[in-house]
Amino acid sequence: MSEIFKGIPVIPYEGPESKNAFAFKYYDADRVVMGKKMSEHLPFAMAWWHNMCATGVDMFGVGTADKRFGAEGYGTMEHAKAKVDAAIEFMQKLGIKYYCFHDVDLVPEDADINVTNARLDEISDYILEKTKGTDIKCLWGTANMFGNPRFMNGAGSTNDVDVYCFAAAQIKKAIEITVKLGGRGYVFWGGREGYETLLNTKMKFEQENIATLMRMARDYGRSIGFTGTFLIEPKPKEPMKHQYDFDAATAIGFLKEFGLEKDFKMNIEANHATLAGHTFQHELRVSRENGMLGSIDANQGFDSKNRRPSYTYEDMFHAFILGMDSFAYGLIKAAEMIEDGRIDAFIEKKYASFETELGKKIRAGETTLEELAARAAEMKSVALPLSGSQEYLEGVMNNVLLK
Amino acid sequence: MSEIFKGIPVIPYEGPESKNAFAFKYYDADRVVMGKKMSEHLPFAMAWWHNMCATGVDMFGVGTADKRFGAEGYGTMEHAKAKVDAAIEFMQKLGIKYYCFHDVDLVPEDADINVTNARLDEISDYILEKTKGTDIKCLWGTANMFGNPRFMNGAGSTNDVDVYCFAAAQIKKAIEITVKLGGRGYVFWGGREGYETLLNTKMKFEQENIATLMRMARDYGRSIGFTGTFLIEPKPKEPMKHQYDFDAATAIGFLKEFGLEKDFKMNIEANHATLAGHTFQHELRVSRENGMLGSIDANQGFDSKNRRPSYTYEDMFHAFILGMDSFAYGLIKAAEMIEDGRIDAFIEKKYASFETELGKKIRAGETTLEELAARAAEMKSVALPLSGSQEYLEGVMNNVLLK
Amino acid sequence: MSEIFKGIPVIPYEGPESKNAFAFKYYDADRVVMGKKMSEHLPFAMAWWHNMCATGVDMFGVGTADKRFGAEGYGTMEHAKAKVDAAIEFMQKLGIKYYCFHDVDLVPEDADINVTNARLDEISDYILEKTKGTDIKCLWGTANMFGNPRFMNGAGSTNDVDVYCFAAAQIKKAIEITVKLGGRGYVFWGGREGYETLLNTKMKFEQENIATLMRMARDYGRSIGFTGTFLIEPKPKEPMKHQYDFDAATAIGFLKEFGLEKDFKMNIEANHATLAGHTFQHELRVSRENGMLGSIDANQGFDSKNRRPSYTYEDMFHAFILGMDSFAYGLIKAAEMIEDGRIDAFIEKKYASFETELGKKIRAGETTLEELAARAAEMKSVALPLSGSQEYLEGVMNNVLLK
Amino acid sequence: MSEIFKGIPVIPYEGPESKNAFAFKYYDADRVVMGKKMSEHLPFAMAWWHNMCATGVDMFGVGTADKRFGAEGYGTMEHAKAKVDAAIEFMQKLGIKYYCFHDVDLVPEDADINVTNARLDEISDYILEKTKGTDIKCLWGTANMFGNPRFMNGAGSTNDVDVYCFAAAQIKKAIEITVKLGGRGYVFWGGREGYETLLNTKMKFEQENIATLMRMARDYGRSIGFTGTFLIEPKPKEPMKHQYDFDAATAIGFLKEFGLEKDFKMNIEANHATLAGHTFQHELRVSRENGMLGSIDANQGFDSKNRRPSYTYEDMFHAFILGMDSFAYGLIKAAEMIEDGRIDAFIEKKYASFETELGKKIRAGETTLEELAARAAEMKSVALPLSGSQEYLEGVMNNVLLK
Repeated sequence: MSEIFKGIPVIPYEGPESKNAFAFKYYDADRVVMGKKMSEHLPFAMAWWHNMCATGVDMFGVGTADKRFGAEGYGTMEHAKAKVDAAIEFMQKLGIKYYCFHDVDLVPEDADINVTNARLDEISDYILEKTKGTDIKCLWGTANMFGNPRFMNGAGSTNDVDVYCFAAAQIKKAIEITVKLGGRGYVFWGGREGYETLLNTKMKFEQENIATLMRMARDYGRSIGFTGTFLIEPKPKEPMKHQYDFDAATAIGFLKEFGLEKDFKMNIEANHATLAGHTFQHELRVSRENGMLGSIDANQGFDSKNRRPSYTYEDMFHAFILGMDSFAYGLIKAAEMIEDGRIDAFIEKKYASFETELGKKIRAGETTLEELAARAAEMKSVALPLSGSQEYLEGVMNNVLLK
Repeated sequence: MSEIFKGIPVIPYEGPESKNAFAFKYYDADRVVMGKKMSEHLPFAMAWWHNMCATGVDMFGVGTADKRFGAEGYGTMEHAKAKVDAAIEFMQKLGIKYYCFHDVDLVPEDADINVTNARLDEISDYILEKTKGTDIKCLWGTANMFGNPRFMNGAGSTNDVDVYCFAAAQIKKAIEITVKLGGRGYVFWGGREGYETLLNTKMKFEQENIATLMRMARDYGRSIGFTGTFLIEPKPKEPMKHQYDFDAATAIGFLKEFGLEKDFKMNIEANHATLAGHTFQHELRVSRENGMLGSIDANQGFDSKNRRPSYTYEDMFHAFILGMDSFAYGLIKAAEMIEDGRIDAFIEKKYASFETELGKKIRAGETTLEELAARAAEMKSVALPLSGSQEYLEGVMNNVLLK
Repeated sequence: MSEIFKGIPVIPYEGPESKNAFAFKYYDADRVVMGKKMSEHLPFAMAWWHNMCATGVDMFGVGTADKRFGAEGYGTMEHAKAKVDAAIEFMQKLGIKYYCFHDVDLVPEDADINVTNARLDEISDYILEKTKGTDIKCLWGTANMFGNPRFMNGAGSTNDVDVYCFAAAQIKKAIEITVKLGGRGYVFWGGREGYETLLNTKMKFEQENIATLMRMARDYGRSIGFTGTFLIEPKPKEPMKHQYDFDAATAIGFLKEFGLEKDFKMNIEANHATLAGHTFQHELRVSRENGMLGSIDANQGFDSKNRRPSYTYEDMFHAFILGMDSFAYGLIKAAEMIEDGRIDAFIEKKYASFETELGKKIRAGETTLEELAARAAEMKSVALPLSGSQEYLEGVMNNVLLK
Repeated sequence: MSEIFKGIPVIPYEGPESKNAFAFKYYDADRVVMGKKMSEHLPFAMAWWHNMCATGVDMFGVGTADKRFGAEGYGTMEHAKAKVDAAIEFMQKLGIKYYCFHDVDLVPEDADINVTNARLDEISDYILEKTKGTDIKCLWGTANMFGNPRFMNGAGSTNDVDVYCFAAAQIKKAIEITVKLGGRGYVFWGGREGYETLLNTKMKFEQENIATLMRMARDYGRSIGFTGTFLIEPKPKEPMKHQYDFDAATAIGFLKEFGLEKDFKMNIEANHATLAGHTFQHELRVSRENGMLGSIDANQGFDSKNRRPSYTYEDMFHAFILGMDSFAYGLIKAAEMIEDGRIDAFIEKKYASFETELGKKIRAGETTLEELAARAAEMKSVALPLSGSQEYLEGVMNNVLLK
């Protein structure tokens, strides 16, 4: 196999003092942090679509980057295989062990779904063959149910039974391929599951149909031996005016409503969080405190997607080095923060009154309004609670982060 | 009782052609729309806080409006009673039969909660006496658990057990007063139930404590004969950086999580909807399709709260006439829209394929991924679903609205 | 020429009571409003790009609409001419007399700019021939300087002199074609004139180069007999993180800075206004009060662009009927508002104190701080100004709008 | 003078390794960075309003912090003097040499403006006396023209000539006091200079009156020996729906329109920038590249204003330590970034083609559209410009920032 990313070496770790643009400053795969290697804490994955497919097209302009990787043109199985070759070289140079894909990232879609499916069989064979002997495997797969015009009114939420069947067919195939490639997860991103206008929409009806589709997917996946996690990636809007998986709280509520919470978790994306009016931290926290944090889609807030004017192969590597270093720095500092202990200690102190007898009784749900009101009446008035001390805590955080 | 809003008459209905600023153009209380009087479709209520209390203070300036209503000054029981007198005259001149209140809208709060509670007894006696023989009664009551500094870290979500007791005590009293005044509902607006920073916050812990407080409130309310609805008013932020009752979907998920969904419904506010990145319609729809639409807090999107430079008594009436006429116009047009039938007909047509045998089977949850995928494989490809026809539907809507 | 939009008639005016989806309810071209025909008040234009080119592609999916209009495929001069035929039939059925275009809406762009230019000559000849004897002509033309990858770092603001030359070449040709087709205006929309990151951007440098390009365009246009208006269409972002023509105030400041304000005006777009944190009304007002309101790009806030799921020919007509009727209704009501006079009267009353002697002196710039301070010292305190009466004024507006 | 902030020492510099909450980790006043002391690079100032006045009041609750500083109550000259004492101790413990004030931060406002002015004379005497022998002085002063109800429709933009006189009187006095206290600047923040609704607003009229007021202020200031800078602090909205000083570009355009650009500069505030849809960096850049960067109001984005639950004296210090350390760290890293040189080098390379003969000719405004178009025609097509390399540049920035 001839080299594609010529002139770009395997990216070494050189430490914070290095000015080498093609070296990691923080990501040191084998460094042990809190008892585990960095590479295990941070199982980075390459997104097929952003890196092997996207050319920089946006709503106002055509692509700037050449992603043929030596193939004659786009839209052929020759090109599909060139992308596999490029992906493996790319991942190996960066020390990345996982990849993610939508079905149609891997092969060109045909008008006949049977042809597309045959292509998926062929390309997954090719991937297995090419990754043999490497430690590269699939993190998760998914079916693209938003790009094809048939999904213009939704996939699980479509108004059309026949379109619904195509959604089912794509999911079935994508799960099969995911299992074949050793995938740990299977993702639903509901890009068209929502509405453009309430004027023509039965909301609950559509949500029930989505749940049914997920239930069938779960049942089928389990039936063919998929033991991984199903994931929902919340996004509030774009392309639709409203998408049903608005944010983590909404998606978790949906899963519980329909009894899917044991098989599904969240795949949180930084930009989707801010688009929903939250912070990234908020979405992670909601997911974690509900036991539903499954994966992180770090596609832009941490820079692993290239801007349109960054069209060269070098830019692809710069983006990953930047992103992986950011996470590595974050990991190091998170560990230091835990060891530092000042923030945790403050939180314990802040909530300490709930460790009293009355506090525990409240937590256990064993009090009544009358009992608590009587206590207030007796106290007559109450002192202010402990200061929130946000400025102090931010100072502690800076103290650790910037040291 | 001497007249307070001098020179302002009882507001008559004069119809769309009237240019009388002190007349309704659409709100005709006894007009029957779809089998029910307008006044029954639209049980307007006056918010004590916006109308009897608010003087136009904002974050950058002191009040512009004089709301003493003949009392010597603010903060006395004399003033509290003057507000009752003013409220009754105001409602009677506008033909409004309901009012809503926070405990501390009715009386000045004392440092000793027992004194405050005694004042609430006194003022509720006074209200009962003054509304005797009128058809004016309470729509809903609530406890203000956000204004007093003790709630700076939350009420149900406070970190301080003693503060939690004061929240319980206020709720207990507010429910009692609500029942005494014939209230149909009891509202929770969690203005401080959220966080300023995740750095010092146990999210799930706080949410569980809120649920416990609501459960105790529900149990106490039912025990003293309250048969009305408990309501949550979602708001995503302001004053906190994040509030737990972010939007209807989140609040409904919370209620179901904690088994409160049978006693609680939503109180939807237009501006809170847009603050959460939704439309007002969206929040109403989510609530309704979940059987959780309880009430509407129309305090600004429809103009029943005055702007700071609108400081006169006349402005208070203009705001209500504007708001009530807007709702009345909306009601008339909603009825016409239903009778017109074009939008409903389109929706039936749009989802018609789910009335086929296969469609019904999907809806009943009786299909599998294999079965649907097989059907797709047989079809090979699929035609586009019916056009969404949003432009046509908006044209129909304008056609009815503007006729 | 064979009919393209089969089954769709010339759209008649049928009045507000009509339920005919293919009829105007308010737009009555020859109806005289305030001394001028509706068709003159509202010189509607068809945007070539939205209607003849756009297929419903968005960032997440391929097109849904077929815009070949009988041609074999896309990207040929046969297709370019089919679009001309379709455009003329479309405009004639809707009673629209104007069209707008980017150069590359009219013809497919070739790798060689000379070939593209020859195609523009050919298609403009074809348009002239086909519109001969009709009253259809160009409203304005423009050069697409954002779609081609060469403009990825800007056109006037590019960092590359050669790319700058191509921007100049495209503008030159587009102005020539605009003049040839009788255009009344020439537009600059700076889709790539801005930055992705300040880290690599010389802001002032780039703005000066844009101004130079506009100055050259103005000089060239005037030299070949163009007497129309040059227009800037402000937009704050998208596709760039920041675009220099952020809003009307910014663009007007830019024009004045560079001495271009006599030849340029604003082309205001509803969505761009809201994207900048303004209202559409605000942007119109800023432009008008500065004497810079040139044109309105009503491409979505008023629905003349189709949603992706509205992919049929019928939908194209529904969108225009909706949009044109909205403007027509607005025109009728604006006239009634003026005749009603209540709002204007209020404004006169509000500012009346500036008609006093002192008021006039202030307005004339003939006072000093000392003089006015002395007057305040003498008054000691001052009464509140007249109520803003926003609620009353909104009531008046509804009164006129909904009558 | 008895100590107010008991138990809080003069804050020492202890370096990044310190865990002392009452020590600076980065701000080392005498450390020389790029030839100048940190204290000169960063002339920190204390805002009287946030620190000596604000108690944590927000729209939903009363204050949490006690700011009486030993005085019996609020609203007396005794309290005004206690605030002076507290301010001096606070600044001295933090090593801050400047303060900023609104007139009514210093003294309670009386109904009679002459009384208020006499109080300002008294308090400024007191400040001069108490700061004698220290290096503490005024950075800038301003008049609060947004809090008093008389300014509800604006100050310079008011509809009422008498109110306009009071604005003039307040400015006159505030400039006098600023000069007396050695102030380097005088600020205009137009909190009420804007509109609530366009329905009752003459925009241009109001803007002209604001300009007149500023012109009078400038003339008066210069006449009494003020040689400092007049400053405008842009903010797009809040409290008004729209404020005329929307952002830096708008304010600069306004100043140039009215010939005020030689005496006025920008005072940029981080949150106001984001409220306008910009970044803080953008507003700083726009100001700097126009030669109009005067000052920075770092009141929240960098944490020198306390959150409502941070109500203790300790919290006041934590906030300043956090804020001052953030700026100090930024300064150190900015210097390192300049010395590193990689970003500057990239920018030079990016724009290098404008250093060619043709590039210089374009920059000099000596080319025509014809000339440049001819060159494009000759080239036929053009290569892509240099990659924007944003990911690389962000990597460089992280490399310097986190080292």
